[in-house]
Amino acid sequence: MGLTLHGYWRSGAAWRVRLALALKGLEHATCAHDLRTGAQRADGYRQLNPQGLVPALDCGETGVAPLTQSLAIIEWLEETHPAPALLPGDTLGRARVRAMAQIIACDVHPLGNLRVLQALKGDIGASEDQVQAWLARWMGNGFAALEAMVTRWGAGFAYGDAPGLVECCLVPQLYAARRFGVSLDAFPRLVAIDARCAALPAFAVAHPAVQADADQA
Amino acid sequence: MGLTLHGYWRSGAAWRVRLALALKGLEHATCAHDLRTGAQRADGYRQLNPQGLVPALDCGETGVAPLTQSLAIIEWLEETHPAPALLPGDTLGRARVRAMAQIIACDVHPLGNLRVLQALKGDIGASEDQVQAWLARWMGNGFAALEAMVTRWGAGFAYGDAPGLVECCLVPQLYAARRFGVSLDAFPRLVAIDARCAALPAFAVAHPAVQADADQA
Repeated sequence: MGLTLHGYWRSGAAWRVRLALALKGLEHATCAHDLRTGAQRADGYRQLNPQGLVPALDCGETGVAPLTQSLAIIEWLEETHPAPALLPGDTLGRARVRAMAQIIACDVHPLGNLRVLQALKGDIGASEDQVQAWLARWMGNGFAALEAMVTRWGAGFAYGDAPGLVECCLVPQLYAARRFGVSLDAFPRLVAIDARCAALPAFAVAHPAVQADADQA
Repeated sequence: MGLTLHGYWRSGAAWRVRLALALKGLEHATCAHDLRTGAQRADGYRQLNPQGLVPALDCGETGVAPLTQSLAIIEWLEETHPAPALLPGDTLGRARVRAMAQIIACDVHPLGNLRVLQALKGDIGASEDQVQAWLARWMGNGFAALEAMVTRWGAGFAYGDAPGLVECCLVPQLYAARRFGVSLDAFPRLVAIDARCAALPAFAVAHPAVQADADQA
């Protein structure tokens, strides 16, 4: 009856779910699928997740397909394991936190994940410089909106004074920004939140570098 | 104290919120921003929505910034106006419906909206044929996963026998597919759901063609 997370160490979307599990203190098994070799598109895994993507969360119930899509999985975790909460208790707060998370999940991350960058280069012939500008543009737009929203509503973290759904999305996205050399100079509040998160045990155990399938380089 | 929807007749994301409002029978005013002229990036509107995108929903409360991000807005509507429900009553059902909606909102729509197509053509120099293949690829991947999930869980509509959150996302995305000439031949269940929706009054009043700011051509 245990939880099993299907993921990949460097998948930003799988990382979000690892963070939610860690923040809620939920033990889980892991099953890694190497996105670089297309393991997530294998027939056996597609039986579990027709989309052929990570993450997916097996709830451990016989005959129940794993849950898919990182934000849907996190909402399920929030409903089934409410404490500690990753969303505020009031409807307006929840709407704001979901919107901040969706800026990353809908308007930033989808434009910079591995399969999209491969398509940009392979199918459309984009140069490295063009890919770099593409990433900087979408990340910059999203981060600028988030910086403004944190200014309104943050108090140490993105919304109020504790980490939650926004941080589950923000920390992986900032890691991607640094990995691809996108400047974060214009977003001091986001960088400060990231630093505060890095000091917390839940964020340490969920980091890609310490996952079992991580490159040892 | 009324609701005001900031949108644009052809925005798929604004259309989702129009559908949710219509399915719940909620009256609202509208404020149109022409995406083709970049009206959504004007300073005044950015005061309301720092992201400079539609939709945004003004709740009519003095001093409260409009809600943003279509799925966050719909979740707020679901929490504040629960009947009729757009999400199932059980946690597993809600997780599945959210995942199906997020396939469109996170993995399909973001790769085909106006600003992304403009960047593909203008910044990266993609040809019309390359843009067409790009759209067909991401829509096809997402629709194939949804078709499989509807096969598992649908019963006339995408999840069970009534329209809800999935249809709010699916109907605008199928409209976009037809507009851009993406074949739907491989997705008969999705096409059937779309036809069933088209016969319902809520879907009729939310259609782009009947919005006040629609082109008269």
